[in-house]
Amino acid sequence: MAEEFPMTGGDGPNSYAKNSISQRLAADGAKGMLVASIFENLDIQTLPSRPTTASSTIFRIADLGCSTGPNTFIQVKNIIDAVSQKYHQSAVELPELQVYFSDLVSNDFNYLFATLPRDRQYFAAGVPGSFHGRLFPKASLNFVYSAYALHWLSKLPQVLRDANSPAFNKGRILYGNAPYEVGQAYSAQYAKDIECFFHARGQELAPGGLMVLLIPGRPHGTLPAQGSLAPFFAPLEFTLADMVNEGLLSEDKFDSFNLPFYCPSVEELRTLIDENGCFDILKLEIQAAQTPAYPSVQQCRAGMESILKKHFGDEIIELLFDRYSKNKNIAGSASLVADDGLAVGFFVLVKRKYL
Amino acid sequence: MAEEFPMTGGDGPNSYAKNSISQRLAADGAKGMLVASIFENLDIQTLPSRPTTASSTIFRIADLGCSTGPNTFIQVKNIIDAVSQKYHQSAVELPELQVYFSDLVSNDFNYLFATLPRDRQYFAAGVPGSFHGRLFPKASLNFVYSAYALHWLSKLPQVLRDANSPAFNKGRILYGNAPYEVGQAYSAQYAKDIECFFHARGQELAPGGLMVLLIPGRPHGTLPAQGSLAPFFAPLEFTLADMVNEGLLSEDKFDSFNLPFYCPSVEELRTLIDENGCFDILKLEIQAAQTPAYPSVQQCRAGMESILKKHFGDEIIELLFDRYSKNKNIAGSASLVADDGLAVGFFVLVKRKYL
Repeated sequence: MAEEFPMTGGDGPNSYAKNSISQRLAADGAKGMLVASIFENLDIQTLPSRPTTASSTIFRIADLGCSTGPNTFIQVKNIIDAVSQKYHQSAVELPELQVYFSDLVSNDFNYLFATLPRDRQYFAAGVPGSFHGRLFPKASLNFVYSAYALHWLSKLPQVLRDANSPAFNKGRILYGNAPYEVGQAYSAQYAKDIECFFHARGQELAPGGLMVLLIPGRPHGTLPAQGSLAPFFAPLEFTLADMVNEGLLSEDKFDSFNLPFYCPSVEELRTLIDENGCFDILKLEIQAAQTPAYPSVQQCRAGMESILKKHFGDEIIELLFDRYSKNKNIAGSASLVADDGLAVGFFVLVKRKYL
Repeated sequence: MAEEFPMTGGDGPNSYAKNSISQRLAADGAKGMLVASIFENLDIQTLPSRPTTASSTIFRIADLGCSTGPNTFIQVKNIIDAVSQKYHQSAVELPELQVYFSDLVSNDFNYLFATLPRDRQYFAAGVPGSFHGRLFPKASLNFVYSAYALHWLSKLPQVLRDANSPAFNKGRILYGNAPYEVGQAYSAQYAKDIECFFHARGQELAPGGLMVLLIPGRPHGTLPAQGSLAPFFAPLEFTLADMVNEGLLSEDKFDSFNLPFYCPSVEELRTLIDENGCFDILKLEIQAAQTPAYPSVQQCRAGMESILKKHFGDEIIELLFDRYSKNKNIAGSASLVADDGLAVGFFVLVKRKYL
């Protein structure tokens, strides 16, 4: 079974709920395109109609990798507003709406459920599990959304920790500025994971169903080693390296730690979607670079605390982030992360083919 | 909004997960009838078939008031085994199965999700909310199950706390041995709640869909005051009264506390289901009396801790259960609870009418 590293739950100072503003801004930036995508491409007539009069049509939406909100609630509302408008324009009665909030089993669903909008116009359900596998019955979804979640790999390639491999990722925690083989190992795992993701969604989405994905990526024609997410984690890498130098952390422990994410290029992603064969790509656009600030201590903890604890142990966390805080400031004054233009986001809109 | 008093979550010594053996035994006792009910009454041909070839039929099951397991997982497996057998016998391919585990928002869904059976043959989802209202889209369920949950009222009748009302429930925490008006107040609230429950399920169950309910009740021809659940809570009532006598608890606080459950008679329940009009009653049988033992301290805490904390405050809980433990033993040696035959369980099988 794949390891799980959920966002930090609850609503404490280091929680995802309190530290997901950058994901929020990115999703806000994509709102216009999301709404337009639904309005222009949703086929109202393709919703399965039931043979008996008592049965109704139902429009089912899933947010995969939703974490704990509030971002997921905001974007679900945007999706529903667009779907409603489209039905209204088509003079078809809006079906009842069911929304599945899905994330890893270890996600804080209790907090998610406790904070569901009271005035919601949909039936809510939580679905625990990895989006690299099946989560829903066949052809049961009409719209799938996933924002800033697909860069998470299901697992790390073993070769990254193998001192005898050319892909041994010594002294780094991601593939930025790494040997070619390191980037290739990440890329190969990403390809496998995306294949699984699209295979599962190909079964779950009803024919004509739409899927919108917001994916962190890297610019056309660049190699993995050249960047994208890696610079964001430079302060974390620097902090860990520093702790090794001072004897606070073993070198082995540091060398065997790698972050399980990967940012594809547009070509990589397009090839993977095409190979699946179940989807027509309606949009695959590069969005403006994200905010160039380094993640704050709280932001870094919200996303990374579970994975850091798992590898390095609970006892080191406070010390690590105390030092992170200082290193971040030093690094931050020297250069801004996204100045190099390597951090981009993809807006992907695909449609499940009719058979 | 109705108040929520969930079972105690997690897997600690006072958790529902560790103290639900009596519910387990009762559900085990009903297993044979449950399996037979499905096998004899499930209409395979009534599952909606979709017009497009790509769409599949899906069989959707909901457990309402599932708490945290393991009981819900065991009973869901029994249901699925019976449904599978029925499909096999009918030489129809088994549809994909989706199971909704539903309980109050404050239920410990995190623990529920973490303990889902790994070898399950269904897609799992959690649905937070009260079963007194709508939880699912129209006609979207094929089988509904609810065990030992429907005796919970959505709220307590105000008159129970009104010193000027004949239904003022002074010196008691339930309606056992209470004036007629107290039982009537409970009965009236139960009627409203059951009406809401059947109204919601009437919309959510697909035509021909089955619903099995296990409901604690009282024998034919008895008045609420005569019993059923009340004796089980005699040690708790006695403990609280004792604390009032010793000045550890205010009399007002004690008099204003009432447990929000009610056990109907068969006639009461039958009338309420008939009034709804959406369901045919296929079975409404009285099961053997439950185990006559008083609830242990842990069992009482698993079910009652949240409601007791809410009313009396956190600080009194340890003292209360320390005394409960002693009182229970005294009471237990004097008489066994169910010796009077007033604690019975109903097995209810209804079918959603075709329109």
